[in-house]
Amino acid sequence: MAPIHAWAAEAAKQPLKPFDYDPGPLKPDEVEVVVEHCGVCHSDLSLINNEWGIAAYPLIPGHEIVGRIAALGEQVKGLHVGQRVGIGWNAESCLRCRQCLSGDQHLCPEVVPTAVGHHGGFADRVRAQWAWVIALPEGLDPAAAGPLLCGGTTVFAPLPTFAVKPTARVGVVGIGGLGHMALQFANAWGCDVTAFTSHESKTQEAKDLGAHHVVASRDSAAIRALSGALDLLLVTVNVPLDWPAMMATLAPKGRMHVVGAVLKPIPVMAFDLIAGEKSISGSPTGAPVTIADMLTFAVRHDVKPHVEHFPIAKVNDALAHLAEGKARYRIVLDMEA
Amino acid sequence: MAPIHAWAAEAAKQPLKPFDYDPGPLKPDEVEVVVEHCGVCHSDLSLINNEWGIAAYPLIPGHEIVGRIAALGEQVKGLHVGQRVGIGWNAESCLRCRQCLSGDQHLCPEVVPTAVGHHGGFADRVRAQWAWVIALPEGLDPAAAGPLLCGGTTVFAPLPTFAVKPTARVGVVGIGGLGHMALQFANAWGCDVTAFTSHESKTQEAKDLGAHHVVASRDSAAIRALSGALDLLLVTVNVPLDWPAMMATLAPKGRMHVVGAVLKPIPVMAFDLIAGEKSISGSPTGAPVTIADMLTFAVRHDVKPHVEHFPIAKVNDALAHLAEGKARYRIVLDMEA
Repeated sequence: MAPIHAWAAEAAKQPLKPFDYDPGPLKPDEVEVVVEHCGVCHSDLSLINNEWGIAAYPLIPGHEIVGRIAALGEQVKGLHVGQRVGIGWNAESCLRCRQCLSGDQHLCPEVVPTAVGHHGGFADRVRAQWAWVIALPEGLDPAAAGPLLCGGTTVFAPLPTFAVKPTARVGVVGIGGLGHMALQFANAWGCDVTAFTSHESKTQEAKDLGAHHVVASRDSAAIRALSGALDLLLVTVNVPLDWPAMMATLAPKGRMHVVGAVLKPIPVMAFDLIAGEKSISGSPTGAPVTIADMLTFAVRHDVKPHVEHFPIAKVNDALAHLAEGKARYRIVLDMEA
Repeated sequence: MAPIHAWAAEAAKQPLKPFDYDPGPLKPDEVEVVVEHCGVCHSDLSLINNEWGIAAYPLIPGHEIVGRIAALGEQVKGLHVGQRVGIGWNAESCLRCRQCLSGDQHLCPEVVPTAVGHHGGFADRVRAQWAWVIALPEGLDPAAAGPLLCGGTTVFAPLPTFAVKPTARVGVVGIGGLGHMALQFANAWGCDVTAFTSHESKTQEAKDLGAHHVVASRDSAAIRALSGALDLLLVTVNVPLDWPAMMATLAPKGRMHVVGAVLKPIPVMAFDLIAGEKSISGSPTGAPVTIADMLTFAVRHDVKPHVEHFPIAKVNDALAHLAEGKARYRIVLDMEA
């Protein structure tokens, strides 16, 4: 078996360097994919810098992978060599626990993230268990699809998970890598969409992305004016907000749903939950069926990540661009460039 | 119209004294009820002491009322004079807002609690809007039913609201006025029930009430041992807990639901929500249909509050008994004693 040519961080906060490894024999339930494109997710940065304390080095980032199947393990069914597929945050789960058998494979206690303790997609080839290798639907631009696989799934999943109705009023906090897809999905879902952004310059862009209303996320008075308005408030940022003001935007039975990895505790007043029968929740990416549904929905409604392309050889430039907050809005690495 | 003889607090933290008032003409949508029994809820104490800053004086507590209809306003339908009925936390709502028309009358922005800005049930008569006057089903002991109307509804409502399945594992924190009913309801709902109590002496009693398992709520190690076990954790206490340990008891997709008025913020880690797709929520009592369903369910499954009786003339003794934490588990005032 030829070695896989990848880019890896040898230790926390180190630049990526070329890194070859021998993947060994293909496991019976694995699929090998020739990577064509791989999105750069903010969580790749968090892993490289070991911000969450879960990284393993050498670390090959990359979990928004688009490519073609090169080889199939002997027990893989339903996929074929040459097929164009995507791989997202997760690469493997046990497939036999309660969560896996319930269709919540992303909540499997043994789930293996693609770039944590597993070699990720900043490489010419990558492997994943068949269940997590998602066929790309016709009509999806492979060069722009990568960011849908992790970021897109993350912001899409709450809509089906909580059976959000198209009559709902949905808020999206943060118009960045996640939020710019969330606005498109919530709009396509049929909802009334409010964008919260800390950058006034993004007002028109938020509207172009599907927001019906735009509010400054640092203007507590403007937020307070929305009191009782929103059925779902999707928080895509990873910085503390004026949480009581954000909670107050929720309608009775409203939900604040967190997908941004806010590291400081969110102080929750029991009364704020009790009085209006409100919820706070969170979720990580989604299950394979959710990813597949999301891709189909994205094609039907023309939901597209806005991407900037970098050749894989300039991966460190791409990471710096993202770290500086300059990405508009997602970065995709092209492997053949 | 004869005056109503009630017991009222003239100011915060004052003992109750006899207080007569003229209720004026009966409004077209109101029902007048001759009170036979009235439960004493911990929230009556909180109102008397103005702990929540919402009390209005003179304050006539009492919102777990059982009695017979004495008079009907001209627009009241579906009820008749002499009928035995109950009135809980709320006495009135607008009946025309989104929440009222959706069957969530308890979330109406104009909802009028029975004992807040309205004269409550520590009295020989009380009034409420017809929608909130609930017919008692056959087979319910009127002398013990009062505590079901507020406390019972509060712990029952999450089961239908969140469509909890009888296959679920349910935890109940606090085996007191609310918790002792929660254990019975969760057991009758068909669930596997775990009681968390700070009093080891209550272990056998918790089992008698329906708990399949009992855990010490101050033993963080024992709580941690339940990691990932519970689908619903119902928090009925109003004191801070080891919140991270409590969150860790939740299974994937699990929910911690707060019905106790914890006044200190609950610090919530976003990662604790995200990783397992967990929720934190709260709720106040329930809608009229929920109350009616709860009463019918209580009769069918023999769910009964454990009550101690005091004559209304000893209301201050009853309040002291409750304040000292001695009630096992609810107190009912008898009006005719």
